[in-house]
Amino acid sequence: MDILTDLRIRAAEPTDGATLWALLEPVFRAGETYAIDPAISRDDALAWWAGGTHDAFIAARDGVALGSYYICPNQQGGGAHVCNCGFVTAAQAQGQGVARAMLLHALEEARARGYLAMQFNCVVESNTRAVKLWQAHGFAVAGRLPGAFRHPQKGFIDALVMYRKL
Amino acid sequence: MDILTDLRIRAAEPTDGATLWALLEPVFRAGETYAIDPAISRDDALAWWAGGTHDAFIAARDGVALGSYYICPNQQGGGAHVCNCGFVTAAQAQGQGVARAMLLHALEEARARGYLAMQFNCVVESNTRAVKLWQAHGFAVAGRLPGAFRHPQKGFIDALVMYRKL
Repeated sequence: MDILTDLRIRAAEPTDGATLWALLEPVFRAGETYAIDPAISRDDALAWWAGGTHDAFIAARDGVALGSYYICPNQQGGGAHVCNCGFVTAAQAQGQGVARAMLLHALEEARARGYLAMQFNCVVESNTRAVKLWQAHGFAVAGRLPGAFRHPQKGFIDALVMYRKL
Repeated sequence: MDILTDLRIRAAEPTDGATLWALLEPVFRAGETYAIDPAISRDDALAWWAGGTHDAFIAARDGVALGSYYICPNQQGGGAHVCNCGFVTAAQAQGQGVARAMLLHALEEARARGYLAMQFNCVVESNTRAVKLWQAHGFAVAGRLPGAFRHPQKGFIDALVMYRKL
């Protein structure tokens, strides 16, 4: 089965709250990869992931949501041509190319929206799967922030700023 | 006159809206140093500078406000021990040590609040006065973001991520 062709990626709808929260809750509660309060409420999490300037997408196979990403401007004004994205993949779908498919979708979406670059502000260095994926798709480590992330098990570790032009 | 002793730095109050806007408006409208929409409204500007997670301070001499800064957590959760600050100095007070005095105040304020590091996410490379000041006070260029800032006169130039532990 070719997951990249079976996977369908669509814009999230207001009715997708339960679907999104099922993807976000384990990731945010773990506190290992996102600089988000692990005790964040469902409403606050959804408002952040899919509200305000964030537009969210859902990746699903056979109607089962396996991942989500958001896209938003990383800054306003003179920085509004650089976008930011966040990605989550369901634990049971790790290693199947879901994140890669979402990244490729996000890069196209970003270009279609007129962005000129994509930036990740706080990639936790222990999230090696993500770092490798971003590097394999043109992102450079533009910056290293010493001890900028407090990992629940590993303690203070570095966070990376990753960046690529589009 | 020793400006560093004459300058008084205090927390901004809800009644300081006009004072803050007089400092912020020319800086935001110019669009040269902050990644903020140059057309931002007064209310949105004040809500950003002194609302939400941001706490604002005002530096004044003889009752005349010459500068302001805010402090806030740069990220949530595992990143909440790193703070972010922003600084503006009135045009007529440039070169008098106001920004330096505010930075020293901010560093103490940050330590008092338990932060372990301070990060500037988008220092425009052409803002050499700021870059030099941060570097003179222990900040390193942790990252360089190619073309991440669109300057109204200079076009696309780099933005710097600057960072120091406290």
